[in-house]
Amino acid sequence: MEKLWQKDKVSLKEVETFTVGKDRELDLLLAPFDVLGSIAHVTMLGSVGLLEDKEVGVLVQKLREIFALVSEPGFVLEEGVEDIHSQVELMLTRMLGDAGKKIHSARSRNDQVLVDVKLFLRAELTKLMAEVREFFDLLQEKSEAYKEYLFPGYTHLQLAMPSSFGLWFGAYAESLVDDAVQLRAAYTVVNKNPLGSAAGYGSSFPINRTMTTQLLGFDDLNYNVVYAQMGRGKVERIVAMALAGVAETLGRLSMDACLYLNQNFDFISFPAELTTGSSIMPHKKNPDVFELIRSHCNRIKALPGEVMMMTTNLPSGYHRDLQLLKEHLFPAFRTLTECLRMAQLMLRNVSIKKDILKDEKYKYLFSVEVVNRLVSEGVPFRDAYRQVGRDIEAGHFGFDGEVRHTHEGSIGNLCNDAIRSMMEQVMHSFPFARVGAAENSLLGESSS
Amino acid sequence: MEKLWQKDKVSLKEVETFTVGKDRELDLLLAPFDVLGSIAHVTMLGSVGLLEDKEVGVLVQKLREIFALVSEPGFVLEEGVEDIHSQVELMLTRMLGDAGKKIHSARSRNDQVLVDVKLFLRAELTKLMAEVREFFDLLQEKSEAYKEYLFPGYTHLQLAMPSSFGLWFGAYAESLVDDAVQLRAAYTVVNKNPLGSAAGYGSSFPINRTMTTQLLGFDDLNYNVVYAQMGRGKVERIVAMALAGVAETLGRLSMDACLYLNQNFDFISFPAELTTGSSIMPHKKNPDVFELIRSHCNRIKALPGEVMMMTTNLPSGYHRDLQLLKEHLFPAFRTLTECLRMAQLMLRNVSIKKDILKDEKYKYLFSVEVVNRLVSEGVPFRDAYRQVGRDIEAGHFGFDGEVRHTHEGSIGNLCNDAIRSMMEQVMHSFPFARVGAAENSLLGESSS
Amino acid sequence: MEKLWQKDKVSLKEVETFTVGKDRELDLLLAPFDVLGSIAHVTMLGSVGLLEDKEVGVLVQKLREIFALVSEPGFVLEEGVEDIHSQVELMLTRMLGDAGKKIHSARSRNDQVLVDVKLFLRAELTKLMAEVREFFDLLQEKSEAYKEYLFPGYTHLQLAMPSSFGLWFGAYAESLVDDAVQLRAAYTVVNKNPLGSAAGYGSSFPINRTMTTQLLGFDDLNYNVVYAQMGRGKVERIVAMALAGVAETLGRLSMDACLYLNQNFDFISFPAELTTGSSIMPHKKNPDVFELIRSHCNRIKALPGEVMMMTTNLPSGYHRDLQLLKEHLFPAFRTLTECLRMAQLMLRNVSIKKDILKDEKYKYLFSVEVVNRLVSEGVPFRDAYRQVGRDIEAGHFGFDGEVRHTHEGSIGNLCNDAIRSMMEQVMHSFPFARVGAAENSLLGESSS
Amino acid sequence: MEKLWQKDKVSLKEVETFTVGKDRELDLLLAPFDVLGSIAHVTMLGSVGLLEDKEVGVLVQKLREIFALVSEPGFVLEEGVEDIHSQVELMLTRMLGDAGKKIHSARSRNDQVLVDVKLFLRAELTKLMAEVREFFDLLQEKSEAYKEYLFPGYTHLQLAMPSSFGLWFGAYAESLVDDAVQLRAAYTVVNKNPLGSAAGYGSSFPINRTMTTQLLGFDDLNYNVVYAQMGRGKVERIVAMALAGVAETLGRLSMDACLYLNQNFDFISFPAELTTGSSIMPHKKNPDVFELIRSHCNRIKALPGEVMMMTTNLPSGYHRDLQLLKEHLFPAFRTLTECLRMAQLMLRNVSIKKDILKDEKYKYLFSVEVVNRLVSEGVPFRDAYRQVGRDIEAGHFGFDGEVRHTHEGSIGNLCNDAIRSMMEQVMHSFPFARVGAAENSLLGESSS
Repeated sequence: MEKLWQKDKVSLKEVETFTVGKDRELDLLLAPFDVLGSIAHVTMLGSVGLLEDKEVGVLVQKLREIFALVSEPGFVLEEGVEDIHSQVELMLTRMLGDAGKKIHSARSRNDQVLVDVKLFLRAELTKLMAEVREFFDLLQEKSEAYKEYLFPGYTHLQLAMPSSFGLWFGAYAESLVDDAVQLRAAYTVVNKNPLGSAAGYGSSFPINRTMTTQLLGFDDLNYNVVYAQMGRGKVERIVAMALAGVAETLGRLSMDACLYLNQNFDFISFPAELTTGSSIMPHKKNPDVFELIRSHCNRIKALPGEVMMMTTNLPSGYHRDLQLLKEHLFPAFRTLTECLRMAQLMLRNVSIKKDILKDEKYKYLFSVEVVNRLVSEGVPFRDAYRQVGRDIEAGHFGFDGEVRHTHEGSIGNLCNDAIRSMMEQVMHSFPFARVGAAENSLLGESSS
Repeated sequence: MEKLWQKDKVSLKEVETFTVGKDRELDLLLAPFDVLGSIAHVTMLGSVGLLEDKEVGVLVQKLREIFALVSEPGFVLEEGVEDIHSQVELMLTRMLGDAGKKIHSARSRNDQVLVDVKLFLRAELTKLMAEVREFFDLLQEKSEAYKEYLFPGYTHLQLAMPSSFGLWFGAYAESLVDDAVQLRAAYTVVNKNPLGSAAGYGSSFPINRTMTTQLLGFDDLNYNVVYAQMGRGKVERIVAMALAGVAETLGRLSMDACLYLNQNFDFISFPAELTTGSSIMPHKKNPDVFELIRSHCNRIKALPGEVMMMTTNLPSGYHRDLQLLKEHLFPAFRTLTECLRMAQLMLRNVSIKKDILKDEKYKYLFSVEVVNRLVSEGVPFRDAYRQVGRDIEAGHFGFDGEVRHTHEGSIGNLCNDAIRSMMEQVMHSFPFARVGAAENSLLGESSS
Repeated sequence: MEKLWQKDKVSLKEVETFTVGKDRELDLLLAPFDVLGSIAHVTMLGSVGLLEDKEVGVLVQKLREIFALVSEPGFVLEEGVEDIHSQVELMLTRMLGDAGKKIHSARSRNDQVLVDVKLFLRAELTKLMAEVREFFDLLQEKSEAYKEYLFPGYTHLQLAMPSSFGLWFGAYAESLVDDAVQLRAAYTVVNKNPLGSAAGYGSSFPINRTMTTQLLGFDDLNYNVVYAQMGRGKVERIVAMALAGVAETLGRLSMDACLYLNQNFDFISFPAELTTGSSIMPHKKNPDVFELIRSHCNRIKALPGEVMMMTTNLPSGYHRDLQLLKEHLFPAFRTLTECLRMAQLMLRNVSIKKDILKDEKYKYLFSVEVVNRLVSEGVPFRDAYRQVGRDIEAGHFGFDGEVRHTHEGSIGNLCNDAIRSMMEQVMHSFPFARVGAAENSLLGESSS
Repeated sequence: MEKLWQKDKVSLKEVETFTVGKDRELDLLLAPFDVLGSIAHVTMLGSVGLLEDKEVGVLVQKLREIFALVSEPGFVLEEGVEDIHSQVELMLTRMLGDAGKKIHSARSRNDQVLVDVKLFLRAELTKLMAEVREFFDLLQEKSEAYKEYLFPGYTHLQLAMPSSFGLWFGAYAESLVDDAVQLRAAYTVVNKNPLGSAAGYGSSFPINRTMTTQLLGFDDLNYNVVYAQMGRGKVERIVAMALAGVAETLGRLSMDACLYLNQNFDFISFPAELTTGSSIMPHKKNPDVFELIRSHCNRIKALPGEVMMMTTNLPSGYHRDLQLLKEHLFPAFRTLTECLRMAQLMLRNVSIKKDILKDEKYKYLFSVEVVNRLVSEGVPFRDAYRQVGRDIEAGHFGFDGEVRHTHEGSIGNLCNDAIRSMMEQVMHSFPFARVGAAENSLLGESSS
C-alpha cells in the first residue's frame, strides 16, 4: 500500500493487511469530517503565518471540492491507499503537487483521527437525536389516541391494577427524555476540540487551537494534550453508554410488544405484512421485527462493556488497540436508527384491542380501586381492605370498570404536554444551529 | 418477621429468609431518606385534605425525631423487621398508635422505595462530586508544581516525545471534568420525583405530586406512573455508568503510577509507609494501594453490564429482581470514595524524579522537536526530516533538551485555569443549594 | 495489625485498612484449605530433608488440630491478624514456638494463596455438582410424573405446537448435563497443583512438587512456575463461566415459571406460603422466589465479565489486583446453591393444570400435527398443507387432541434414561473418591 | 425475495430487508454444513420408509454435487434468495423438479439451522485446535531455545526475582493446555445432534434421530426436543467462553511483548518490517501487530457477555433474536486464527537480548536466591534474611548471577515434556478421526 507519511521501512505484506484491517471501509464514514478538519487546520495555519494566505486560499478551495467528492455515495478509497488521510492528501497532491502536502504541517495522524472521530460522532448524535425525537412524537401521539384503552397493569407479571395504552405509550415517550439527557451529556464530551494535540504531547509550532475550535463549531477545547489523546476510548465509551440508553428503552418496548401480541395476552395485533405466519396456524403472527429490534438493542447494550474491555488497563498515550473501537460503534448508529424506524413502522400500524378489561377474568384488577375509593370516602384503610376482601371471598365483589385517576401522570391525567416540554428543553440545549453554521462556513456555504 | 403491610398469608421461613436477602443491611442506607419522603408525603396529604392539619403536625414532628434516630451511626433494624419502611412505621406507631399508620395512605411500597432510592442516590452523587472536586484540585495543584518536570511521552508504549508531569497531572484533572459531566447527567435523571406512582399504575387519591416534588427538592416529576416504575433499573444503570467514568480515570492513573514506579521507568517514588517492600529487596516498593484502586475501579466499570444483565428483557412493571440492584451499586459509592481518597494520599506524598530527560537514552525524544524547529525556520518538512535522520544515523544528533511548546494545552501552556473554569461550570450547574434548602425545610432546620 | 512475614517497614494505618479490605472475612473460607496445604508442604519438606522427620511429625499433628479449630463454625481471625496464613502461623507458634515458623520454608505467600484458592474452589465445585445432581433428579422425576400434561409450545412467543410438562422439566434436566460438562472442565483446570511456584519464579530449594501434587489429590501440576501464577484470575474466570452456565439454566427456568404462573397463561400454581399475595387480589400470587432466583442468576452471569474486566491487560506476574477476585466469586457458590434449593422447594410444590390444551383457543396448535399425519398417510406435503388451511378457513378444522410423537426426545418418548446416563457419565468422570481419600489421608482419617 | 417454504403472506419490503439482515452473507459459512445435514436427513428418511430408496439415491447424489458447488470460494446466494436453506432447495429443485422438495419432510427450519450451526462450530473448533497446537509447539520450541536467557521476574510490576525466557514462553504454552480443556468441553456440548427436534416440539413422523446422530458423527443426541432448541444461544455462549480463554492467553502475551519491547525494559526486539517506526526516531519500533492482537483478543473476551445480554430472560422456545448471534461469533474464529498466526510470525522473528541480568541494576533480584541458599546451607531463615539485608545496606551484597533452580517447572527444569503430554492428552480426546470419517462417508469419500 502507498503510505505518504513517515514511512521509512517497508513492512511485510501480512503485517500491512493485518494492521489495516477494516479501516479502508470504516474510514469512508470519516471522509467528509477529515476534509472539514483539514479546512479548519489550513485556515488556522494561515492565520499564524505557517502558510501564506494565497496557499490557504487554494488549499481551502480544493479541499471543498474534495469534500463534495468524498461525500458522494459511491466514494471508495483507491486500491493501495491505507486510510482516508492518505486518500485526501493523494487527491490534493494530484491537484496541487507538493503544495498539497502542506496540510500536514503542525499536525499528526493522531490528532487528525481524533478530530475526525469527534466530528463524525457529533454528526451521528445529531442525526440520532432527530430520530429519537420523531419516535417520541409518535409515542406521544399514540398515547393521546389510546388514552381510553384500558388494559391490565402487572406487577411481578401478575395482574395488579388497571393501566392504559395511554400510559404505556406515554411511558416510553418519557423514557426517551431521560435517554436524551444522556445523549446530551455525551455530545458535550464529544464536542470539544482535540486538534493540535499532535501525537498526544503537543508541538513547538505556534498554532492557535482556540481558532480551530471556533471554526469547527466545538464548544471548547480538550485543552491538555495528554488528555486529548486519552479521550480516545473514553469518548467511544461515553457515546456507547448513551446509545445503550436508547437501546434499553426500545428493547423493553419490544419485549412488551412481543408479550402483548402473544395469544394469551392478545392485547395488540399487526397487519399480516408486518409479521410472519402461516395459513395453517391462523393465529400465528410472529413479531420478527420486534424480536430483531430487541436483539439488536441488547447487543448495543453490550457495547460499553466491550469498549471498556478493550481499553482497560492501557497506560496513557496512544495505542494501536484504539483503532478497533470503530468497528462496532460506528455501525451501531445505523442499527439503532433502523430499529427506531422499524419500531415506528410497527407502531404506526398497530391495532389495540378495545374493552380488554371488560373481560370477567380481569375484575379483581379493580379491587384496589374500590378500597381506595372507600378510603377516600372516609372508611379507615384497614376496614375498607377487609370489607373488599370479604366481598371478594363471598363472591359479590362489585365494581363499575371505571378508573378515576386524576393526579399528575395517571390514567386520567397523562401530562403529555409537560413531558413534551422536558424533551424540548433537552433538544434546545443542543447547539445544533451554531455547529451547523460553523460547518457551513468552513464549506463556504451560507447557513440555511 | 413482622410485616405490617398487606400480609395475608404466612410464608415459609425459607421463603422469607431468601426474599429478605441483604435488605435489612442495605436498607440502613435508605433510612433517613425513607423518613424524608414520608415527611413530604404526609405534608402533601394534609394539603389535599387526606389528613387533618393537626395529624400532619404530629406526624411530621415525630418523623423528624425518627430522622434523628435512624441517622445515628449505630442504628440497626430491629430483629424480625424486614425492611426500613416497616421499621419506620413501627417506630411511629409506638409513638402515636394507629395514627402512625396513616403515612401509608395513597402510597405503596413501590413508590416509597423508588423515592428512597432516588433521594439516596442524589445524596451520594452530591458527596461524590465533592470528592471528585477535591481530587481535581490536588491534581491541578500538582500539575502546576511539576510543570517543569519533563519525562518521556510514549505512543505504542514506545518512547515518542517529551512530556511533563505538569501535563500528566493536568490530563487526569481534565478527565474528571468530562466525568463530572456524566455525573451531572445522571443527577438530572435521578432528581425527578417518582412519588405518587403507587405500584406503577397510580391511584384514585387526589394527591398533589407537584407539591411533593417541590418539598423534596426534585427538579421535576417522573410524570407518567408507568415510566416512574420503569425508572428502577434504569436509574441504577445510568448512575453505574457515571461511576464507571470516574473509575476509568482513576484506574488509568493507577496503571500509569504502577508503571512509573517500576524500576525500569523509575520516574516516581513513594514513602516506604505507603508501599510494601522488604529489606532484602531494597528497590522493591510495591504499589499495593494503586493496584487495589485499579482493581476496585475495574470492578466498578463492570457494574453497568451487571445492572443491564439483571434487567434485560424484563417486561414493564415491577419485578422482584430489582431488589438486588442495590447490593453492588450502593457500596460502590463508598468504594469509589475510598479510592479517590487513597489516590490523594498517595499523590500528596509522591516524589517525582528531576531531570529524567537528561539521560542520554532519551535523546531521540527530541528529534521531532528539532525537525519541527527546522520547519518553523523555513526548511521544508521533508528536507528537515531527512537532515535530522542523517544526523542521527551519523551519530551527531544535537539537541538542547529544551521544549518550547506554547500552544494551548501544551507543556509550556497548560491552561489549568481554563480547565478549572470548565469544572466550575459543571459544579455550579448542580442545584445543590436549592436541594439542601428543601431538605432542611422538611426537617424544620434553617439552611446554613 | 500483626504481620509475621517479611515486614520491614510499618505502613500507614489507612494503607493497611485499605489493603486488607475484606480479606479477614473471606479468608475464613480458605482456612481449612490453608491448613491442608501446609500439612502437604511440611510432609514434603521432610521427604526432601528440609525438615527433620520429628519436626514433620509434630507440625502435622498440630496442623491437624488447627484444622479442626478453623473448621468450626464460629471461627474468626483474631483482632489485628491480617489474613489466614498469619493466623495459622500464629496458632502454630503459640503451640510450638519458633518451630512453627518452619512451615514457611521454601514457600511464599503467593503459592500459598494459589493453592488455598484452588483447594477451596475444588471443594465448592464438588458440593455444587451434588446440588446440581439433586436438582437434576427432581427435574427428571417431575418430567416423568407430568409427561401426559400437555400445554402450548411457543415459538416467537406465539402459539406453535403441543408441548408437555414432561418435555419442559426434561429439557431443564438435560440442560444441566451440558452445564455439568462445563463444571467438569473447570474442575480439570482447578485441580492442578500450583504449590512450589513460590512468588511465581520458583526457588532454589530442592522441593518435590510431584509429591505435594499427590498428597493433595491434584490430578497434575501447574508445572511452569510463571504459568502457575498466571493461573490466578484465569481459574477464577473459568470457574465463573461454569457457574454462569448453571445460572443460565436456572434463570431461564425461572422466567418460564413466572410466565406460566401469570394469569393469562395460568399453567401452573404454587401454595400460598411459597408466593406473596393479598386477600383483595385473590388471583395474585407473586413468584418472588423465582424472580429473585432469576436476578441472582443473571448477576452470576455477569461475573465472568467482571473477572475479565479486573484482569485484562495486566502483564504477567502477581499484582495485588487479584486479591479482589474473591469478593464476588466466593459468595457466588452459596448464592447458586441457595437458588438451586429454592427452585427445588418451589418445584416440589408446584401444581400443574390438567387438560390445558382442551381449551378451544389452543386448537390450531394441532394443525401441524394434522398436516404431518396426512403426509404420513401419503398425501403430498403441499396438498396436505392446503387442505388443512382450507379446513381452518372454512371453520371445520377437526383434530382429536392426541399427540402421537414417538421419536427420540419427543413428547411420547422422553428418553429420560438416556439423559440420565449422560449425566452419570459426567458425574463419574470427576475424581471425587481419589481426592477425598487424599484429603482424608492428610488429616490422618481413614476414608469412609 | 423468493421464499420457498411456508410463505402465505407477502411481507413489506422494509420488513424483509430488516429481518434478512446479514444472513445472506453469514449463511455462506453454513452452506456445506447445510448440505451435509440434508444428506444425513435424506438417508435417514429412506431408512424409515419416508422416502423410497431410489429417491434417496438420487437426492444424495445431487446433494453431493451441490456440496462441491457451495464449497467453492466464489459461491454466493442468488439474488432474491433469503438464506442458504432456500438456496440449496432451489438448486435441488432445478436439478430434480418437485422431488427436490422432499428434503423438507419431517424437518423444520429450526432444527435445520440448529444442526448447521453445530456442524459449523464443530468444524471451526477443529481448525482452531490445530492452530492452537501449532502455536503451542512454537512456544515450546522457543522455551527450549531460550532457557538460558534470564531476565527479571516482576511482582507488583516491581523487580522481584530472576526469570527466564524459557519460563516465559513455556508459561504461555502451558496456558494453552488449559484453554484447550475449555475448547474440548465446548466441543462436547457442540457435538450433540439437535436434528429431528423440528420447531422445538418434535413431530409425529417416525424419524430415527439415532441414525442421523451416527451419520453426522455426533457423539450423542440433544435428546429432549425442547432442550435441543434451548441449545441455541447456549452453545454460542459456551463456544464464546472457550474462545475467550485462548484470547486471554494471547492478549496477555501481547501485553508482555509490548512492555518488553518498550525501551525502558528493552528485553526483546523485532525486525523493522514487523514493526512501524521512523528514521528520526531510530529507537521507535511500534508493536502494532501485538497491539492489534491484544485489542482483537479483548474484544473476543467481551463476546460471552454480549451473547448473554442478547439471550438473558428470553423464555424457552425459539425467538428471532437468536439469528443475530452469528454476526460476531462466526467471524471471531477467523479473527482468533489470524491473531494466532500473526503472533507466530512475530515470535518466529523475535530477538531476545542476552545477559540482561548482567546489568548492575538487577542485582537485588538475586537477594532471595542468596537468602535461600544460606537457608539450604543450614542458616535459620530469619538470620539469613537479616544477614543479606545487612550486606545490602552496607553495600557489599555479593552474588554470582547463577540461578540454581531444579524443582519441577523452575528455570532449571522446565518440564516442557510433561506439559506437551498434557496437551497431547487433550488433543487425543477429541474424536476428530471418527467425525472426519463420518463426514467423508456422507460425501461418498473414503477417509484418508
